[in-house]
Amino acid sequence: MAKKEKLCAQKWVYQFNEGNKDMRDLLGGKGANLAEMTNLHIPVPDGFTIITNASIYYNENNIWPEILEEQVYVALKKLEDQSGLTLGKDLLLSVRSGAKFSMPGMMDTILNLGLNDDIVISLTSQTGNPHFVWDSYRRFIQMFSNVTMNIPLIFFEEILTKMKEEAKIEHDFELSVDQLKEIVRIFKEIYLKRQGDEFPQDPKAQLKLAISSVFKSWNTPRAIAYRKYEKISHDLGTAVNVQMMVFGNMGLDSGSGVLFTRNPSDGVDEIYGEYLVNSQGEDVVAGIRTPLPIKQLENDFPEIYQQLITNVKKLENHYRDMQDIEFTIMSGKLYILQTRNGKRTGIAAVKIAHDLVKEGLITEEEAVLTVTPRDVENCMFPRINWVDEKHAFQLVMKDGEEKSQKLKEMGKGLPAGPGAATGIAIFDSDLAEEYKKENPSKSLILIREETNPSDFHGMVVCDGILTLRGGTTSHAAIVSRQIGKRCIVGSEASGLKIVEERGAVRKLISKDHTEVKEGEYITLDGFSGKIYEGKGSIITPSDLSPELEVLLDWCDSKAKILVRTNADKAADTKTALKFKAKGIGLARTEHQFFEKDRLPIVQKMILSATREERQLHLNDLIKFQRSDFEDLFTALDGCPVTIRLIDPPLHEFLPNPNKLELELYKGEITPERREEIRDLLPRLRGLEESNPMLGLRGCRLSILYPEIVEMQAQAIIEAALNITDKGIKVIPEIMIPLIVTGREFTFVRKIIDNTIQSIFRKLDKVIPYTIGTMVETPRAALTGAKIAERGAQFISFGTNDLHQMTLGFSRDDVAKFLPLYLEKGILKADPFIEIDRNGVGRLMRMCVTEARAVNPLIKIGICGEQGGNPESIEFCYELGLDYVSCSPYRVPVARLSAAQVTLRAET
Amino acid sequence: MAKKEKLCAQKWVYQFNEGNKDMRDLLGGKGANLAEMTNLHIPVPDGFTIITNASIYYNENNIWPEILEEQVYVALKKLEDQSGLTLGKDLLLSVRSGAKFSMPGMMDTILNLGLNDDIVISLTSQTGNPHFVWDSYRRFIQMFSNVTMNIPLIFFEEILTKMKEEAKIEHDFELSVDQLKEIVRIFKEIYLKRQGDEFPQDPKAQLKLAISSVFKSWNTPRAIAYRKYEKISHDLGTAVNVQMMVFGNMGLDSGSGVLFTRNPSDGVDEIYGEYLVNSQGEDVVAGIRTPLPIKQLENDFPEIYQQLITNVKKLENHYRDMQDIEFTIMSGKLYILQTRNGKRTGIAAVKIAHDLVKEGLITEEEAVLTVTPRDVENCMFPRINWVDEKHAFQLVMKDGEEKSQKLKEMGKGLPAGPGAATGIAIFDSDLAEEYKKENPSKSLILIREETNPSDFHGMVVCDGILTLRGGTTSHAAIVSRQIGKRCIVGSEASGLKIVEERGAVRKLISKDHTEVKEGEYITLDGFSGKIYEGKGSIITPSDLSPELEVLLDWCDSKAKILVRTNADKAADTKTALKFKAKGIGLARTEHQFFEKDRLPIVQKMILSATREERQLHLNDLIKFQRSDFEDLFTALDGCPVTIRLIDPPLHEFLPNPNKLELELYKGEITPERREEIRDLLPRLRGLEESNPMLGLRGCRLSILYPEIVEMQAQAIIEAALNITDKGIKVIPEIMIPLIVTGREFTFVRKIIDNTIQSIFRKLDKVIPYTIGTMVETPRAALTGAKIAERGAQFISFGTNDLHQMTLGFSRDDVAKFLPLYLEKGILKADPFIEIDRNGVGRLMRMCVTEARAVNPLIKIGICGEQGGNPESIEFCYELGLDYVSCSPYRVPVARLSAAQVTLRAET
Repeated sequence: MAKKEKLCAQKWVYQFNEGNKDMRDLLGGKGANLAEMTNLHIPVPDGFTIITNASIYYNENNIWPEILEEQVYVALKKLEDQSGLTLGKDLLLSVRSGAKFSMPGMMDTILNLGLNDDIVISLTSQTGNPHFVWDSYRRFIQMFSNVTMNIPLIFFEEILTKMKEEAKIEHDFELSVDQLKEIVRIFKEIYLKRQGDEFPQDPKAQLKLAISSVFKSWNTPRAIAYRKYEKISHDLGTAVNVQMMVFGNMGLDSGSGVLFTRNPSDGVDEIYGEYLVNSQGEDVVAGIRTPLPIKQLENDFPEIYQQLITNVKKLENHYRDMQDIEFTIMSGKLYILQTRNGKRTGIAAVKIAHDLVKEGLITEEEAVLTVTPRDVENCMFPRINWVDEKHAFQLVMKDGEEKSQKLKEMGKGLPAGPGAATGIAIFDSDLAEEYKKENPSKSLILIREETNPSDFHGMVVCDGILTLRGGTTSHAAIVSRQIGKRCIVGSEASGLKIVEERGAVRKLISKDHTEVKEGEYITLDGFSGKIYEGKGSIITPSDLSPELEVLLDWCDSKAKILVRTNADKAADTKTALKFKAKGIGLARTEHQFFEKDRLPIVQKMILSATREERQLHLNDLIKFQRSDFEDLFTALDGCPVTIRLIDPPLHEFLPNPNKLELELYKGEITPERREEIRDLLPRLRGLEESNPMLGLRGCRLSILYPEIVEMQAQAIIEAALNITDKGIKVIPEIMIPLIVTGREFTFVRKIIDNTIQSIFRKLDKVIPYTIGTMVETPRAALTGAKIAERGAQFISFGTNDLHQMTLGFSRDDVAKFLPLYLEKGILKADPFIEIDRNGVGRLMRMCVTEARAVNPLIKIGICGEQGGNPESIEFCYELGLDYVSCSPYRVPVARLSAAQVTLRAET
Repeated sequence: MAKKEKLCAQKWVYQFNEGNKDMRDLLGGKGANLAEMTNLHIPVPDGFTIITNASIYYNENNIWPEILEEQVYVALKKLEDQSGLTLGKDLLLSVRSGAKFSMPGMMDTILNLGLNDDIVISLTSQTGNPHFVWDSYRRFIQMFSNVTMNIPLIFFEEILTKMKEEAKIEHDFELSVDQLKEIVRIFKEIYLKRQGDEFPQDPKAQLKLAISSVFKSWNTPRAIAYRKYEKISHDLGTAVNVQMMVFGNMGLDSGSGVLFTRNPSDGVDEIYGEYLVNSQGEDVVAGIRTPLPIKQLENDFPEIYQQLITNVKKLENHYRDMQDIEFTIMSGKLYILQTRNGKRTGIAAVKIAHDLVKEGLITEEEAVLTVTPRDVENCMFPRINWVDEKHAFQLVMKDGEEKSQKLKEMGKGLPAGPGAATGIAIFDSDLAEEYKKENPSKSLILIREETNPSDFHGMVVCDGILTLRGGTTSHAAIVSRQIGKRCIVGSEASGLKIVEERGAVRKLISKDHTEVKEGEYITLDGFSGKIYEGKGSIITPSDLSPELEVLLDWCDSKAKILVRTNADKAADTKTALKFKAKGIGLARTEHQFFEKDRLPIVQKMILSATREERQLHLNDLIKFQRSDFEDLFTALDGCPVTIRLIDPPLHEFLPNPNKLELELYKGEITPERREEIRDLLPRLRGLEESNPMLGLRGCRLSILYPEIVEMQAQAIIEAALNITDKGIKVIPEIMIPLIVTGREFTFVRKIIDNTIQSIFRKLDKVIPYTIGTMVETPRAALTGAKIAERGAQFISFGTNDLHQMTLGFSRDDVAKFLPLYLEKGILKADPFIEIDRNGVGRLMRMCVTEARAVNPLIKIGICGEQGGNPESIEFCYELGLDYVSCSPYRVPVARLSAAQVTLRAET
C-alpha cells in the first residue's frame, strides 16, 4: 500500500516550463532540452513530458501508473489553454520518445495525432488547405497503425504505389485531394480488417495508445541491441514528449528552415543556412525545391528574421557552442523546433573554439577539450573538397561555377599518411624523378607493390604514395609520415593489382576492372584510405592557422606530458620545431647513411674483412656524420635530442644479392661487372638473414663491431663541442637500441663513455651528455629494474618493434592478415597505430614501475609511431611517461592530445 | 678480555683421530677426510689439522692466536710418539691447505718440511739413498722459498736448466748426487741473497713459516678470483693439514700406485689400476717408466695386496661410491694417501649406481641423483674412443693392437645433436642419397652452409650433419635431434668455410688451412662441438643398457613431472615409446606435408586462387593426413598425443622464387617450363615475407583459410574413430598454434568443434578430445587468464618461438652473434638450449599463475627444444608444469632430470 500511495503522490508529468536541462534522468535528453528552451523563452511549440520512470513502470507492470492518465489530461488542458487550441478540434500533437542518452531512430514517434474524420473537415475549412490536411491524415493513420498496432507498413505502401501508378505520377505530393481521400478510406479499411476495430476516432484514445507504444518501444530488440552496443543501461527507460504540432506549409506566411549559428565550413561568425516558404522541414532537406539562403528571410520577413537571430544567438550563448537549429514559421509565427551542437569541419572547430574563448563564452580548457585530434589533422593536411563524402561527390569548379561531381572508388587500403592527394600515376621511382624534372608543376602519385630505401628519391618528388603491400609502419608509411606525404598502404587486400605486360603501359586495376594507366590521374584520400579513379578536387591549407596556433599554445600550458618529434635531418627538425616540438625523441643515425655520397662508403665499411679495414672506411664516414650532427644541433637551437646508435641489419645498406645474381645471367654484362658481382655475391649471401627483424642489428652490431659505435660517439660529441663553441646549447642523449639484457647496456655504455672521455681529455673540454636505452624487445621491458640499476639515464619505448615482437607481427607482412583481424574484431585496433594496452601496454607498465622503483628520476618516453596517436598518448600519460615523440606532422595532434588527456585525468 | 680468554680456551688443533668427515667447516674438506680415514683405521700417514678459524684470525690480525703455537707443538709431539720418528731427525712433514670446498691448486702446499743441512746427512745414512735425500732437499728449498718468501721460481729453475745443459741431460732425475749437492748450495745462496737471512735450519721455525704461508694463501688474488667465480664465501678460511711424509721410492720394498675400486670405463666391479716399484706417486702419472697393472701387486706382495684390497673396499663401502685411491708402500708398509669419488664414463656411472643399489649400499634416490644427464647421453650415443680427449688422442686398433692416435681439430661449432660420427664428407643432399645407394656400408657426413626441408632426404642417409650457419634450433639441429643424427651447427664462427671452385672438388677448409675434400673422412664430436680431420674411432652403444633401463624406471617412480616426446611420425613415436615417453607432447602436422607424394598437392592447395579450388586440393590431402594420423595413433597404442595444427608460413612449402627466376635465364629451358615459371613467379612473390617468423603462420592461417583447419580436424577425428574401432584407445589433444589474443583461440576453436560435432552427428559416434593452445608469443604468455577463461583445456609453451620473440633472436640468424654473447658473458647460456629464466621464464610464470587462477586443472607443458634440457626441466618443475616434451633421443635424459629435480626439491 505504501508503494501505491507513493505512486499516487508522484509527479509523472512535467510541463515544459517546469523542467530544465539538468533533469535528463527524469525528462530524457529531448525533454530536458525542450524545457530548457522553454525557460529561455525560446518559442518552442508547447507541450509536456512524461517522465522516464513511467515507462519503467509500464514495462514492468504492463499498465500505466494509476495517477498518470489524470496528470496527462491536466497537462493537456494547460497546453490547450496556452495555445488556444483544442484537441479534437484544431490541436494536433506529436508524441515522441526521448531517453537520457540519444538513441537516434531506435524508438517510436507518432505525428499529427488528433486527426479524425470530423476534424479533417473542420481543419480543412480553418486552414483552407485540404491537400495538407488529408495528406496529414493518411500519414497519421499509416504511422499510428504501424507504431501502436504493429501493422506492417508494406500494406499501406502498396496502396500508395498502386495509386501513383494509376495516376501516372511519381511523388506522394503530386497526389490529388480526391486520391488522398480514397487512400484514407482504404487505410482505415486495412486497419479494420487487421485489427478487428475501427480506426480510433477519439483523440484521447489515440493519445493513450500512442504513449503506451512509446513506452514499449524502449524494449524493442533493435533498441536493446543498440544499448548493448553503446553500453547504455537497460534500466533508464524513456520519457515521452507530447508537443503541439506546427506546420510551415500553411501558406505564404509560413515556411521552414535550418541554420548554423556560425559557418560550419570555416567557423566564421555568421548565420549560415537556408529556408523555404510554405514548406515542411523535410522539404528543405529533400532537395525537391531549391531552398533560399537564410539572408533572403531578412528581406522577406524582417521581423521574423530579427526574432530568429535573437533566439538562435540566445541559444548559442546558452549552450556555449555553435548550434544547428531547425525552425518553422506557421502563419507568421516563429517556432524553434530543435537545437543541437552543430557538426563542423576541423578548421571550423578550431576557429569556433578559439573565438568562443575570446568572446568569453568558454574557458581555454573547454576549448581544448572540444576540438578533436581529427579536427587538427583536417586543419593541417590537404583534403578532397567534398560535398557529400559518403556518396563521393566532390565540389569542382567548372566554367567558373561550383559543381558537384562524383568520384569513382577503386579500392581501399590502410590510411598511413593523413591528407588527400591527386596526381598522375607513376609506377617507378626513377621515372617519377625524371618526369618531375620535366614537369615540375605536375603532381605525381607513386604506386608500388611496396617501397624500400631505394624508392626514397621517387617518394620525395611525389605528392602521394600508394602501395599494395605493407602495414601502417611499413617503409612507405613511416617515410611518408616523416616527409609529410599522403600515403595509403596494403591496398592489395581490397583487390587492387599492378599489371605490367611487356609492350603495354603499366596500370593499376581494381576488382571491378576499373583501370588507371601510368600517366592518368588518380586520387588518394589518406584520411579514409580510399582510392579514387581520376582527378580529385583538393583544398590545401597553408601553415597552421593563427587560431590553431593559439589553441595549441593553450594545450602546451595544460599538458603534463611533453611532445617531441622523430626527425633525422635538419629539414624535418625545422618543420617539427615550427610545430613546437620540445626536441627530438628519436634521431636515427643510420638514415643519413642512405644518401648517395655516403652509401658506397657504408657498403665498403660493412663488407670489410678486418677491423682495420673497417676502421679505414669509418674514418671517411665520420666526417659526414659529424657535419650531419652539426646541422641537426644547429637546427635544434638548444632543444634536446635523443640520438639512436646504428640499428638496422647491415644488409639493408647493401644491394640485393638475388638481383645481382640475376644480372649475371639476364643480359649483357661487362667482364668487370661480372667479376665484381662474383666477388660481392658470397659476402652478400653471408649477410643475408631469415628474419632480419630478429637478427644482427641494434646493439648487437655495437657489440660485434665496437668501432662503429666509437665512430658514432665521437661524431656526436665533436659536433656537439663545435656547435657549443658557436654559442648554441646542445643536449645530446645517446640511445642504445635493441637491448635484451642489462649487460648489453653496460657493455656498449662503456665503449661510449670511454670514447667520449678520451675526447674530453684530448680537447680539454667537457659537455654534458646522457646515455640511455631503447626498450623495444619484450625482454628489455621485463628488465626495467636492471637497466635502471646499470645507470641508464633514460628509457625510450620503441613501440614499433615492441609490438612486432610481443605480438609476433612483422609490420612488413602484417597486411596479409591484419585487415581480416580488424574486420572480425579479433583485434580492436591496429597495434601499429594504437598501443595494445593488454599486451604490450602491460609490459610497458611493468618496465616503468620497476625502472622507477630503482630510479624515480629516470626519464621515460616513447618514440614508436604510436607516439602520435591520441589513444596511445592517453595511455602514455596514465603510465606517467615524460614525453611522447612522433613524426613532425603529427606534432600538433599530439600536442592537443597531450593537453586533453591531462585535462581529462585532472577533472 | 672475554674474547681473549675464549681464544685461549679454544681448541685450534685436531689430531686426525679427533675429527670426522662431518667437520668440514672446521677441518676443511681434506682434513675431515683424513680424520675420517684415520677413524676407519685406514693406514693414512699420521698428522693433525689446524682449524679454519685459525687462518681467519691470522688474516684479520696478522698474528697467530696466542695459544696456537703451543697446541701445534703438542700435536707434533703426539705425531712423533705415534710414528716413532722425530722432527729434526727423521720425520719429514707436508703442510697443506684444505678449505671446506675444494679449490684445487689455488692455495699453497709445502712438502719435505724438516730437512736441513744436518738432517740430510743422517737421513742419507738411514735410507741409504743419497739421491732421494738431496733431491728432496733441493725441492724443499725451492718450494719453501717460493711459498713463504715469494722468491720467484724462475731463479731456481734457471739454475736447474743450466746444470742439466752442462751435464747434457734432459730430466731432473738424471742429475747426479754431486750435482744435486751443488744445486742445494746455490739455492741456499739465492735465498740468502734475496732474503738477507740464511735458509732456516730449525725445523720448527720452518713449520711456523709454512703454516703462516698457508694461512695467507687464502687471500691470494687467484684464490679470491676462484671463490668469486665458484661463488664460495670469502669468510670460510682454510684449514692447515700437517702430515707425515711417506716415500715410495725408498727401495725395492717400496712403491706407489693409483687405483679405482671399479672399472671407470664400464663400471664392472673389479679393482682397476697400476703401480710402480720404488717410485713416488708422480712417477706413475708422468709416464716416464711404464707402470704395472695392479694385479701384478698380488704376485709381488700378496700380503700388501690383500691389505690394500681390504682397505679400498672398506673405503668404497664407507663412502658408498667407487673410489679413486692413491697409495704408497714405504719399506713394506702400506699407506693410503688419498681417496675420492672416482671419475667415470657415463656407462660406468650408470652401472655403478645401479650395482650399488643392488648391493644395498645406496638407495634408489641416491643412485638417481648420482648419475648426471651427461652420463645418460654418453650411454646412448656413439662416441669417440678417447684415450685423452683433452689432447685429442683416440684409441685405434692397428694390426690387431690398440694404439693411441692423435686427431687433428679443424674447428668448433655448437653441439646440436649429441654423439660422435665419422664418415665421408659430402656437400650435397642429392649426392649423399646417390652415394649411399651405391655404398650402403659407408658412413657419410653431410656438410652444408645450412639445411632446409629439401635436404631431408640427404640428412636421413648420413650419420652426421655439419652446418656452417644456424643455431641450436636451426633446421639442421632440430631435424638431427628428431631423427637421431649427430650434428654440429654454426661452425662458420670458428673459421670453417666451404670452398667450391668450378672444375675442382668441393672441400671444407679451416682457419689454419686444414682441408677435408669431398670423399675424405671427417669426424664430428657432437658432445663437444669439435670437428676433426680424418677418421675417428667410434664406439656405438646398442640400446639402453639393462642397468640404464632399471635406473630410468626408478626415475619414473620418483618424478613428479612427466616426459613426453616431440614426434610427427610413427617411426619416431616408436623410438620415443621404447624410451618410455608418456605420449607425444608435440606432433607437427605439417611435417607430413613435405613428403614427395604430398608436396605437389600442398603446393597446389596453397596457390589456389579461390576457396573452392583450395577445398578441392584439401580433399586430396585429407586422405594422406588421415592415414598418417592412423599410423601415429596405432604406434601410440593408447598414449595421449598433442597434435598441432598447421603452423609454418605457407611459402616454406613452395619453391624459392629467386631460384626459379634464375632458372629463366641461367641455361637452357623448355618453353613449357618457361611458361610454368612465368605463371608461378608472381604468386610466389606474393607469398614472400620479410620476416616469415612473424608473418602469416600459425592460427593466422586457420583464420584466413578455415578450410585447412576443417580438413585437419576432420582427418584427426576420423582417424581416431577408425583406430578406436580397432580397440586401440586414442586420446587426441588438438593444439592451436601462435595465439596472440583469446579471441583467436575462440575463433579457431569454434571451427574445430563444429567440424568434429558434425562428424559425430553424421557417424553417430563420439570420442573424447580436448582443444588447447600453444603459448609461443610474448602476448599469449601475458594472456594466460583469457586463454583459460575461453576454455582452453591445455597450454603448451612453445619455447623456441617464445625465446625468439621475447629476446628478438631469430634462431636461424643467431649464430652471427650468439657465440660472442656467450663468450663475453652477456648471456650465461644459449637460450635455445636453456630457458632464459629472468626473461622468458618470467613470462611463463605469469602465464601459469594466471591461467591456473582461472582453471586450476588446466594441463600445462612445454614442447620447445628446451624441454629436454636438465636446467630447463628444473625450471618447469618449479613452475609446476605437468610435463615436458622433447625429441625422442632426449627422452631418457629428460626422465633422469625429471626425477632429479623432484628429489632435489623434496629434500
